[in-house]
Amino acid sequence: MTNLVAIGGGTGLSQLLRGLKWYEELSIVSIVAVTDDGGSSGIIRQDFEIPPPGDVRNNIVALAEKESLITDLLSYRFEEGFLGGHNLGNIILLALTRINGNSFPLAVKSLSDFLNTKGRVLPCSCDMLRLVASFENGDVVFGETSINRHGGKIKEVWLDTVAEPFSETIASLEKADHIVLGPGSLYTSIITNFLVREVKETIKKSGAKLIYISNIMTQPGETENYTLSQHVSQIEYYMGRKIDKIVVNDSSFPSDVLERYKEKNSVPVLQDMCDSRIITGDIAYIINREKPIIRHDSNKLAKIIVSLLE
Amino acid sequence: MTNLVAIGGGTGLSQLLRGLKWYEELSIVSIVAVTDDGGSSGIIRQDFEIPPPGDVRNNIVALAEKESLITDLLSYRFEEGFLGGHNLGNIILLALTRINGNSFPLAVKSLSDFLNTKGRVLPCSCDMLRLVASFENGDVVFGETSINRHGGKIKEVWLDTVAEPFSETIASLEKADHIVLGPGSLYTSIITNFLVREVKETIKKSGAKLIYISNIMTQPGETENYTLSQHVSQIEYYMGRKIDKIVVNDSSFPSDVLERYKEKNSVPVLQDMCDSRIITGDIAYIINREKPIIRHDSNKLAKIIVSLLE
Repeated sequence: MTNLVAIGGGTGLSQLLRGLKWYEELSIVSIVAVTDDGGSSGIIRQDFEIPPPGDVRNNIVALAEKESLITDLLSYRFEEGFLGGHNLGNIILLALTRINGNSFPLAVKSLSDFLNTKGRVLPCSCDMLRLVASFENGDVVFGETSINRHGGKIKEVWLDTVAEPFSETIASLEKADHIVLGPGSLYTSIITNFLVREVKETIKKSGAKLIYISNIMTQPGETENYTLSQHVSQIEYYMGRKIDKIVVNDSSFPSDVLERYKEKNSVPVLQDMCDSRIITGDIAYIINREKPIIRHDSNKLAKIIVSLLE
Repeated sequence: MTNLVAIGGGTGLSQLLRGLKWYEELSIVSIVAVTDDGGSSGIIRQDFEIPPPGDVRNNIVALAEKESLITDLLSYRFEEGFLGGHNLGNIILLALTRINGNSFPLAVKSLSDFLNTKGRVLPCSCDMLRLVASFENGDVVFGETSINRHGGKIKEVWLDTVAEPFSETIASLEKADHIVLGPGSLYTSIITNFLVREVKETIKKSGAKLIYISNIMTQPGETENYTLSQHVSQIEYYMGRKIDKIVVNDSSFPSDVLERYKEKNSVPVLQDMCDSRIITGDIAYIINREKPIIRHDSNKLAKIIVSLLE
């Protein structure tokens, strides 16, 4: 078995896991950032003092053995009334946390066991953590949602408190043969994990190969106009270690799709590196041609990653 | 197979179903009243315009093949935040209703199938119904919660609109060999079903044996000081048909337990009938001796019922 640890959160990491779970030679652990403070996750985190459940839920569903009534329920979002905007999976993880003596990791484990997930999902930390960013204009902003809304170039990020990692997260990093970073938001899904000191130190000491999967598009409010080399250098700066392989999409997109993204200050990440670590592939696709969303293709992405594990 | 239809709602009916589900010779259908407008069910009914899910949920859990993570979740009640007082099972039934094209019966069926329930649970009607009561002092009160809070003797009950029954509910009543009424609140769980005209007519025409399980204690705000004969005559009046068998508890309770109940205007239902239809049995027990709650014993109750089915 090859021990693969994936670090990130959100939709990107779920796409990767959906593809990886079919490779039976892999033992997969997904480590999920816990600084999300927006949307349903943010409200539940605030009101009930549990880690934000949204990304964890996405990863559990992505790794579930099969689709079922329960995965449908976990992915359902309410549109109205006092539940409007809330995701049922988040509410279920909250209930499971309470049922399991207020242990979020036990809640995650019981749900994963029930769904027979092909891998484990672990929170980076069980502490209530908040991301803080300073900007080039000198502003200091607390919380991911506010940071993403602020605009301008991020200068430095840190956590508002000293954070303890979740013990099993450290254990899985120590055992890892390969660590995959992303796809996911540069600061709020990837780098935020390295701000937990012991996580960073464990990755630094680890003999695991480090694979970074670059985002396809820049992210408004977070990486506007960042090139590939800027993404890479930020990760290496916060991780304190070199990346071994960098996976980059080389498929192109119709101009009307790019136009729509550009309206939202998002452009393809410019490949500005001449570097033997780079592996390129046609690993993107467009969901919904009418309201286009560019995503990594689960199967193509997983295939490239698996080819790098030898 | 013997077709048994149980009519009622709430905790009482669930206790019966928990016992009956082990008898493999029974094909069980539970018909649940839909006029509940209190608590979590009432808010969800009001905000999302679906039938009140609480009693349906209780019955599904009672009939589930086995206890699991999902039955734990269905029974979990939140204590805090914007979810405080809400039952997760109600929220799940709401989501399933939306997922199933806004069909509450399909939601109930998909959850029942998933839990492999030993019997079916059907709402009496899918309409938004409200119970109305006139009192002896001339007051007319709308809604179950308000009726129970009003106090005084109920003179007459009716629905605030002409109600269509759920078609499968009628079909199951037509097929029934035995119809069991209660245990449950006299007006708000049992009689409220007969106010749907076609339900009443189908029961009247039916050749099924009618078994009534009397409540053990009178219910504050609904049947204060009602004797057994008053319960029976009210049911027969609204159902338009004679009951065939009447099951009555004959176990007694410690005086301190009765004292606690009396403080809340609840006393044992007085057996004031001399009638060959009556079957008595020691079918009650006390949950939690410190804060005593008197309940029907699932297994003893089921055994008596099954003995009456020959």
